[in-house]
Amino acid sequence: MGTSDSYKPKTVTGSAGYVLEDVPHLIDYIPDLPTYTNPLQDNPSYSVVKQYFVNADDSVAQKIVVHKDSPRGTHFRRAGPRQKVYFEPDDVHACIVTCGGLCPGLNTVIREIVCGLYHMYGVKKVLGIDGGYRGFYARNTVTLTPKVVNDIHKRGGTILGSSRGGHDTNKIVDSIQDRGINQVYIIGGDGTQRGASVIFEEIRRRGLKVAVAGIPKTIDNDIPVIDRSFGFDTAVEEAQRAINAAHVEAESVENGIGVVKLMGRYSGFIAMYATLASRDVDCCLIPESPFYLEGPGGLFEYIEKRLKENGHMVLVIAEGAGQDLLSESIQSMGKQDASGNKLLQDVGLWISQKIKDHFSKQNKMVMNLKYIDPTYMIRAVPSNASDNVYCTLLAHSAVHGAMAGYTGFTVGPVNGRHAYIPFYL
Amino acid sequence: MGTSDSYKPKTVTGSAGYVLEDVPHLIDYIPDLPTYTNPLQDNPSYSVVKQYFVNADDSVAQKIVVHKDSPRGTHFRRAGPRQKVYFEPDDVHACIVTCGGLCPGLNTVIREIVCGLYHMYGVKKVLGIDGGYRGFYARNTVTLTPKVVNDIHKRGGTILGSSRGGHDTNKIVDSIQDRGINQVYIIGGDGTQRGASVIFEEIRRRGLKVAVAGIPKTIDNDIPVIDRSFGFDTAVEEAQRAINAAHVEAESVENGIGVVKLMGRYSGFIAMYATLASRDVDCCLIPESPFYLEGPGGLFEYIEKRLKENGHMVLVIAEGAGQDLLSESIQSMGKQDASGNKLLQDVGLWISQKIKDHFSKQNKMVMNLKYIDPTYMIRAVPSNASDNVYCTLLAHSAVHGAMAGYTGFTVGPVNGRHAYIPFYL
Amino acid sequence: MGTSDSYKPKTVTGSAGYVLEDVPHLIDYIPDLPTYTNPLQDNPSYSVVKQYFVNADDSVAQKIVVHKDSPRGTHFRRAGPRQKVYFEPDDVHACIVTCGGLCPGLNTVIREIVCGLYHMYGVKKVLGIDGGYRGFYARNTVTLTPKVVNDIHKRGGTILGSSRGGHDTNKIVDSIQDRGINQVYIIGGDGTQRGASVIFEEIRRRGLKVAVAGIPKTIDNDIPVIDRSFGFDTAVEEAQRAINAAHVEAESVENGIGVVKLMGRYSGFIAMYATLASRDVDCCLIPESPFYLEGPGGLFEYIEKRLKENGHMVLVIAEGAGQDLLSESIQSMGKQDASGNKLLQDVGLWISQKIKDHFSKQNKMVMNLKYIDPTYMIRAVPSNASDNVYCTLLAHSAVHGAMAGYTGFTVGPVNGRHAYIPFYL
Amino acid sequence: MGTSDSYKPKTVTGSAGYVLEDVPHLIDYIPDLPTYTNPLQDNPSYSVVKQYFVNADDSVAQKIVVHKDSPRGTHFRRAGPRQKVYFEPDDVHACIVTCGGLCPGLNTVIREIVCGLYHMYGVKKVLGIDGGYRGFYARNTVTLTPKVVNDIHKRGGTILGSSRGGHDTNKIVDSIQDRGINQVYIIGGDGTQRGASVIFEEIRRRGLKVAVAGIPKTIDNDIPVIDRSFGFDTAVEEAQRAINAAHVEAESVENGIGVVKLMGRYSGFIAMYATLASRDVDCCLIPESPFYLEGPGGLFEYIEKRLKENGHMVLVIAEGAGQDLLSESIQSMGKQDASGNKLLQDVGLWISQKIKDHFSKQNKMVMNLKYIDPTYMIRAVPSNASDNVYCTLLAHSAVHGAMAGYTGFTVGPVNGRHAYIPFYL
Repeated sequence: MGTSDSYKPKTVTGSAGYVLEDVPHLIDYIPDLPTYTNPLQDNPSYSVVKQYFVNADDSVAQKIVVHKDSPRGTHFRRAGPRQKVYFEPDDVHACIVTCGGLCPGLNTVIREIVCGLYHMYGVKKVLGIDGGYRGFYARNTVTLTPKVVNDIHKRGGTILGSSRGGHDTNKIVDSIQDRGINQVYIIGGDGTQRGASVIFEEIRRRGLKVAVAGIPKTIDNDIPVIDRSFGFDTAVEEAQRAINAAHVEAESVENGIGVVKLMGRYSGFIAMYATLASRDVDCCLIPESPFYLEGPGGLFEYIEKRLKENGHMVLVIAEGAGQDLLSESIQSMGKQDASGNKLLQDVGLWISQKIKDHFSKQNKMVMNLKYIDPTYMIRAVPSNASDNVYCTLLAHSAVHGAMAGYTGFTVGPVNGRHAYIPFYL
Repeated sequence: MGTSDSYKPKTVTGSAGYVLEDVPHLIDYIPDLPTYTNPLQDNPSYSVVKQYFVNADDSVAQKIVVHKDSPRGTHFRRAGPRQKVYFEPDDVHACIVTCGGLCPGLNTVIREIVCGLYHMYGVKKVLGIDGGYRGFYARNTVTLTPKVVNDIHKRGGTILGSSRGGHDTNKIVDSIQDRGINQVYIIGGDGTQRGASVIFEEIRRRGLKVAVAGIPKTIDNDIPVIDRSFGFDTAVEEAQRAINAAHVEAESVENGIGVVKLMGRYSGFIAMYATLASRDVDCCLIPESPFYLEGPGGLFEYIEKRLKENGHMVLVIAEGAGQDLLSESIQSMGKQDASGNKLLQDVGLWISQKIKDHFSKQNKMVMNLKYIDPTYMIRAVPSNASDNVYCTLLAHSAVHGAMAGYTGFTVGPVNGRHAYIPFYL
Repeated sequence: MGTSDSYKPKTVTGSAGYVLEDVPHLIDYIPDLPTYTNPLQDNPSYSVVKQYFVNADDSVAQKIVVHKDSPRGTHFRRAGPRQKVYFEPDDVHACIVTCGGLCPGLNTVIREIVCGLYHMYGVKKVLGIDGGYRGFYARNTVTLTPKVVNDIHKRGGTILGSSRGGHDTNKIVDSIQDRGINQVYIIGGDGTQRGASVIFEEIRRRGLKVAVAGIPKTIDNDIPVIDRSFGFDTAVEEAQRAINAAHVEAESVENGIGVVKLMGRYSGFIAMYATLASRDVDCCLIPESPFYLEGPGGLFEYIEKRLKENGHMVLVIAEGAGQDLLSESIQSMGKQDASGNKLLQDVGLWISQKIKDHFSKQNKMVMNLKYIDPTYMIRAVPSNASDNVYCTLLAHSAVHGAMAGYTGFTVGPVNGRHAYIPFYL
Repeated sequence: MGTSDSYKPKTVTGSAGYVLEDVPHLIDYIPDLPTYTNPLQDNPSYSVVKQYFVNADDSVAQKIVVHKDSPRGTHFRRAGPRQKVYFEPDDVHACIVTCGGLCPGLNTVIREIVCGLYHMYGVKKVLGIDGGYRGFYARNTVTLTPKVVNDIHKRGGTILGSSRGGHDTNKIVDSIQDRGINQVYIIGGDGTQRGASVIFEEIRRRGLKVAVAGIPKTIDNDIPVIDRSFGFDTAVEEAQRAINAAHVEAESVENGIGVVKLMGRYSGFIAMYATLASRDVDCCLIPESPFYLEGPGGLFEYIEKRLKENGHMVLVIAEGAGQDLLSESIQSMGKQDASGNKLLQDVGLWISQKIKDHFSKQNKMVMNLKYIDPTYMIRAVPSNASDNVYCTLLAHSAVHGAMAGYTGFTVGPVNGRHAYIPFYL
């Protein structure tokens, strides 16, 4: 990681409180880079080229709800094709890596980086890195062509494989340098994007002409600046099946309780949207709002109330909800019974057990709890149409940005418009 | 239960080894019952009536794979409308009860008993019993009309509710007698059909003109005589989602193992058919064939082999598989850690833990296990088209049988033809 | 329609080129209306009330791609609950009407207006107008309660029925006045919103305290200001089935051509998004870009080229594409053969016939064309999760707006934030 | 086609009226063929081999509804693996051809012939014939291995392509002989199976050791002996979407009529089953029962009645229904207007036009007709789980039969048991 020369944000200001949080560019540290005409100009499919290119000064406003005289606030560089590019198509040697857990749309993003580079810019050399970051130095690479990726968007998962856990930044940058790679597309979550930032710093420190572009993946939708993450729509759609099933099971017995655990370690977006979309959920527990079990205003009281009123209920819980209660509970169990209790670290199994224990202790009410954990069934589906369109735009934005020489950036829609966001945000 | 006068099988024999296992009839114990012309005869929708009625002597062969000179074997009375019926439509007072766990198609069966009675026979009085057997004496009934049940086949679950556990046969028959019910349709599994048999015996003992018809429900498909049970097709279809997800998850990581638990306490039909339909499963464990974990020929060895060959694998396990290993394992854990270990009584969670423990102990192989339990998501879906057709035929067969005075019977297809099967089978 | 007193736009300006296109308010023409505390303030489900209410000055920027010193441009009033409302819940008498063709999500919007009024504001009197605008005076109304609408979002279509064609504004306003209705929710497309504008003018002319809120419905997504219309996502998703089928059919024969017609009379949004999401489409014809059939650069040439290269192709055509060619073609047929040729007014059937004629004339190439028109299958599905969430927000925004005394407005997201837009836009 | 030596049925009789309609065998015309031990005997996956093999004398009864003393009737040879086979695995050179229109499950059948030959019998040489019968002499072949076909069952259509129309039997048999093919698997409908019969006759005439096995494909389910054809279940399931859409469209307008055309040129099985499964259909027109339009008892009268009673209706029509009325109607139009009227040869478009004309003429009733033709969307979907299982059993039965030296046979379930049926039936 760069020490003295660590990266400084590029901030530009304008009238009426306008602020642009700009992204790094290769010319920031390699001054005299030649530029080339964007080959899209001669592409028959993009005939109305002049309108098509993004104006160099375009920026996207983050603040959209404003008052008559409020300052204009933060803006980001607009994503899209530029009139000048900093790579000759024949010289581009791109690579793609996917990291972390599965998410609908990974294969669509891979497909569209490959096809975007090929069909829009005539780039022929694209490598897939196998099995996440460590694949840069521990595995063989996969050659990616439009033909290889043609149908992959109809399958769930990632054709490149993935992994979690530690990696060696220097070995990765060595591999990038040794293989002559000059565009790196990194698809992954929070930790992965932090890793990408460190890789970018090292590349910058070594003065390499290598563009690093991040495509943010977080099915939980917990990335601050951008509107939503890819796969989110698909996940909310798939979650409906589990909620419907919980509802049907709960309705069909006396005092039926359906419990559904959904993804969301640090945010309850999926749980909340799935609840909003379904309209069959009585209670939705998310990390953002703490709750407690016993006593007045507690969960048990609420459950009893709903069962008395309605005869059944559905509870949705995000995986990160109630972590404080959970860790307290696990500590109190002690260490002697490690094997089975590991399972109780799953908040869904834990809360189901707690509810069962409460009602069996009380003896005042028979209840019937059914617990559903659809997590892997949600993660593994292919992306739906809306996410396919979204992944395509993300991938193409990343390609346009890297070709235009931007680096150390993440792509994503800000208020509906795709923009380049610096890694440090 | 009838003591001295307990029910004796009605067996008829014919030439070349023909045997008919007949079902009881109201006239077996109420001799001089009047008969009526089947109202279907005048129904414009069934204009070609003569072909439509089932010949009184029709029987369905159970043995279908035969040799040139083999005996003809067991037969059952063919289901379908008869020319004579033993109830006047205006006098019929039917009731329907659903018992046990959910199964796709319950609502279709309910709908079609109601609509079949109404549209084919002009029967207007049909009651729904709420919440299973105990609903006969512990709950209010629900009036069922074609309008009430019109759209219920598009929903999962049962609109009548269900329950498990004990019930009082005498109170049930009292309720039947007190309410003037004379046709009882009982939808449920093995235990429920045994209950129906006892109810039938008691009705016969009391000499009541009440027909008792069972519609067998067992998503596991573990009923001996009949071809398949309703909901089975839908369950196998839905199971594909879980298997696909397990496959995608397994494929996307190094040494990925996808484990899917499917229904089937005493038989592995769903697991086997789902495996056959999917073609992505490497190993399918079912109650019918015992297995062991350690040593040569054991499960762990097989898993290691598949991971080495293929890099990932999918394992499907029926909920009743390996029960001997499971109970042994639970006993050895002792009683001190009851809370968390309860969860290990689920064979899917148990085997997943065993596999993880084995590989972490060995230290020779990192592996990534993802466990999926789609049980409730499968049970709660509405039945698919094929099951809807099947449920309709089952319900109509039951209605024709009861109207024709048969009782103490279960309906079901034998080699593709619907037949009446005596309870004791 | 008001003559001398016709409605004048309410435009407010601010610093740096800020413009607010405001919506009418009841106090514009009924000066001394009393206000009430918003009942949400005391609603336990909305406990953190202060953050929840929208600031009276909040506006949403329409221009989001800006330059450093560009003017701020047009803004709209932000949608959401206000601290003060202009109706007492007990006095509210709302009605809902749906007009025009079907669109996924109609029932969700109806449901959420009813449930939003009931649960958020305690409004109990909501009427459904049966069969579109004419239902105001030619039909009975339907009482809508949370119970009645509870499950309707899981069904396609509209429970209120719909119609097209003329209506009598005065009779409608008479009916509104006679029945004592004071909130009118109108769900419909372009023509319907124009009708709503005229109804609003008449209500204003008569000086009635009646809020008129429009919820824009256009599956084609051809409304200028707002981001997308409800049902659009669902339509694009469903269109994938038709495109997939066309692709499979085309691939399985020599020189197979799959033609799919999609909705879009004046815009090709659905066709374009469905094409973008599918990635199996070779050619997408939309109203926005004219084309021709014969000669160099014509459609036939392109089809021949793709068939030679690839052996098969898929063509998507929006229903409004090539209208000039179509009307020319129909005129040339003359009047003598009216009956069969009516069918050729369908652009899908017409272009399919044209392609077949061309290739059979040429005799140089056998080809196999399969035409799919999934329009009604798309329109009639229930909305997906994403549209359900969207419809809920639309409906609640409309309710908040009407309760706050705004009128003559349409709701819709502008750059992702819900806003109130005056009818004349 | 063989003249003097044309094929004579092999009929065997037994006691009590038992008749076996046997299939040809290679030894019928090549006497001293050596036999080999079935390699399944040593296959670890089929360890309980003795039970697994089919007894040489096993036959399947066609007549299943019988009386006490009725004759036993027609039987067919039971399908399944035999203890002796007539091919050495290394000598087998198989080929697969698909003919006619698409049908869900084609790819599963192809996959399972390849995998069945490979995994059960160790056969490595399997060719795919490209584009139907003519592909034997006009196209290159495709090499089929388990790896090539691994995922094809998840896709609709046929990877081998298909075609309709004439072919030259001698050229086909020449190609079979020249390429050294000795097992021919032919997947196709009625016409295709007749073609297969002629190919078999020619092979027999030439005295070639080539087994010819047919797998019957007819989504209409109109094959006499067997229970159902593959793809039927999937088709009925998919048809539900169209019927649902028609129902929703019809319900949402005044006097709405939804018309759905389904496959079935000579039989109405799909239309009838889809109607039975949906329960939303008011009227189902099929080839088997003639109808008329005008006057008492006519279709128009019925439609008017339903609209008056219910306000809307759904009509399902099989493509082969009302062909007499249709051809009469077309003749009366004369020849002058060929172009548009071609479209009216589609019974769905025709009947829709007729209904519209009738109601517009009458002027007494406004009605709203929506016509849906889901044919291609149904044909092109991948097979569902139940059809996947069925296709697997069909393919394996064909493989067992050919390996055992049977030829000139079709496979299919008779009363639920797979059997070999001679071509002439």
